[in-house]
Amino acid sequence: MNAKALRKLSYGVYIVSSWDKGRPVGCVANSVMQVASQPAVIAVSVNHENYTNECIKACGRFAVSVLSEQSEPSIIGVFGFKSSRDNDKFDEVPRLLKCNMPVVRDSAAYLVCEVVDKVETQTHTVFFGKVLDADLLNEETPMTYAYYHEVVKGKSPKKAPTYLPEADDEEAKWVCSVCGYAYSGDVPFGELPEDYRCPVCGQLKAVFQLKTK
Amino acid sequence: MNAKALRKLSYGVYIVSSWDKGRPVGCVANSVMQVASQPAVIAVSVNHENYTNECIKACGRFAVSVLSEQSEPSIIGVFGFKSSRDNDKFDEVPRLLKCNMPVVRDSAAYLVCEVVDKVETQTHTVFFGKVLDADLLNEETPMTYAYYHEVVKGKSPKKAPTYLPEADDEEAKWVCSVCGYAYSGDVPFGELPEDYRCPVCGQLKAVFQLKTK
Repeated sequence: MNAKALRKLSYGVYIVSSWDKGRPVGCVANSVMQVASQPAVIAVSVNHENYTNECIKACGRFAVSVLSEQSEPSIIGVFGFKSSRDNDKFDEVPRLLKCNMPVVRDSAAYLVCEVVDKVETQTHTVFFGKVLDADLLNEETPMTYAYYHEVVKGKSPKKAPTYLPEADDEEAKWVCSVCGYAYSGDVPFGELPEDYRCPVCGQLKAVFQLKTK
Repeated sequence: MNAKALRKLSYGVYIVSSWDKGRPVGCVANSVMQVASQPAVIAVSVNHENYTNECIKACGRFAVSVLSEQSEPSIIGVFGFKSSRDNDKFDEVPRLLKCNMPVVRDSAAYLVCEVVDKVETQTHTVFFGKVLDADLLNEETPMTYAYYHEVVKGKSPKKAPTYLPEADDEEAKWVCSVCGYAYSGDVPFGELPEDYRCPVCGQLKAVFQLKTK
């Protein structure tokens, strides 16, 4: 089996959010899809190790924020490379309240769902959510997973179902040791100011490492 | 609820195929995603009314062919706007045999899966398939659902979970009455030869109708 074939499936980039006893929590997801039309039901896959997983189970509801090509890459850094167990992620990312659920303000659209079914796999829970509320927040183009990899140059969090440890880099690159973002700007890395921060996870220049193939 | 928000989820375009007592069958799907990593499991949503649905249940296996931007739009016409109940779709579309399953030859990649779980919604069955075999067939860019709508100018089959009856057209257009394809070529529609065929479903010019908003 050639695992690269699995990378040919197309996805968007989403923040799946819920409540942890009154505290808003969330994580990055790419595996989100509509599975039924009347009523509208979506399915979302969340790793067992994501703290948001147990919060959705306890709360019975979740929201999906659809990131756009204009959404700040740091949103993915905050929600994809830290845990809600130890971090109040929504303190760093502005939110809205829709149907009583926390939603990322800087996104193209949102869906609020009630859990109606779930399936456990070895690594992930697939939540089936009946859509209670949904709306557009702007006219921006939704960010695809391909756009995130090719344009934002971002990496997959290790908890993503689509994570592939053997992902190959073409040449020597300065890579953020926290989130895996590979610097590809026009200014040589060494000439960047010391307060340069990783555009994905917000870490300082000092955490970058030179990686060769 | 604004149903347009659901259209902001990102998808690819796939042919889901199986066997009907030795006869290859299949249909178009966009709702396909990886839901677990070790072992790799994908989920696929197929309408109850799709003949392929009952064939997958009887066979216990299915394949997913990942269409590319270079795949012939007529593949979507054959698999999306006709029924395998009455049509041998693979007679019109060249196939390969992978792990004993029929796969569309003109696609970027394929996955062969064994059904390990399923969830019934009001309108669709969500099949969970453990990936038995997968490989790339070429280096072409996978076709996204957005590309199909914006570049190929194709419409959604009525059985798709993402089908929206209120989809709006901007102006008067010649539209294929079989598959809903809206002509947008540079040559005025009236000047096209009589043997012009719909690029999506292959029907002749005569079945086109002028639709105004």
